Amino acid sequence: MTTIDNGVNVQALLDAREVLEGAPEAAQFTWRASSKWTTGVHSTTTIQNYFGLGEEQSHKTETAFDADHPEIFAAEDNGITPIEYLLVGLASCLTAGVASVAQNRGIQLRSVESTVEGNHDIRGMLGVDSDVRNGFNDIKVTFTIDADASKDEIEALVAQSQKRSAVFDAISNPTEVAVAVA
Amino acid sequence: MTTIDNGVNVQALLDAREVLEGAPEAAQFTWRASSKWTTGVHSTTTIQNYFGLGEEQSHKTETAFDADHPEIFAAEDNGITPIEYLLVGLASCLTAGVASVAQNRGIQLRSVESTVEGNHDIRGMLGVDSDVRNGFNDIKVTFTIDADASKDEIEALVAQSQKRSAVFDAISNPTEVAVAVA
Repeated sequence: MTTIDNGVNVQALLDAREVLEGAPEAAQFTWRASSKWTTGVHSTTTIQNYFGLGEEQSHKTETAFDADHPEIFAAEDNGITPIEYLLVGLASCLTAGVASVAQNRGIQLRSVESTVEGNHDIRGMLGVDSDVRNGFNDIKVTFTIDADASKDEIEALVAQSQKRSAVFDAISNPTEVAVAVA
Repeated sequence: MTTIDNGVNVQALLDAREVLEGAPEAAQFTWRASSKWTTGVHSTTTIQNYFGLGEEQSHKTETAFDADHPEIFAAEDNGITPIEYLLVGLASCLTAGVASVAQNRGIQLRSVESTVEGNHDIRGMLGVDSDVRNGFNDIKVTFTIDADASKDEIEALVAQSQKRSAVFDAISNPTEVAVAVA
């Protein structure tokens, strides 16, 4: 178990679990983003600071993300579309989970790749048909994993990752979103 | 109505709506992402191609997104966390909607800024307490808008954007996500 290395410090995560069991208030995080409209449907969103473990925290650097619509929607394509950002979050969350669970189970990973496909009937958001929802109809994630493990063990890794994934939950299940004007 | 300019080609969107009313198959889009594990919980996800209007489409360039966990989780902080990508998508989608609706209503925007806060009890994903969900508890979006319009008109812009937002729907309501191993 100790000779494999996926680069995940599982002991630190197990220690954190133990600490947070007795200190639920430290487990309350607030993630933040700040967005600015540029022109048209182009905007830039920056992320750096967040709150967690009872105090203000900060990523090492500020990261900026452009979003726009593609040229086929008569826009400038200065960035990916907003809804594609959900696929980035989903793929990366499930991948992080696979690496963490593999480390915890003593499975050496060699490569983990995934493709995500989100089906989207755009008649909803365009207001063509009020029976069509605005967001995705459904999403399919397919993993290709090379690891020192059987097919069953690899499938169990992915299943456990899904069970603990923050983004899988956030997309599969409803979350209350309050939108206000300052 | 014609003298204001938010950089949104509303006529093209209205034309698209009319065309798609008679051609629902052209409105079926598939957005795609490809993700590769690096090491630890760090991964890189790329986006370029998608399907829509009945054929393969492509963004002007491929964009790559790093995701990682922060140093307080014993990781390297080589990118924002997966769940923060959902906030990027939400802010940019609502902002694009505000610009589009303003253009359609003849309202000149001067600036649109928003902050998004996602509250997250990390005991869920760490497996500390199975009664705590893995994803966000709730999300709050606050807009600050400078426009040639009354406060009521600005609030109506934001409400209409929310009503048509793909990402607002995807986060507020459940979506079926199927995860498989190739």
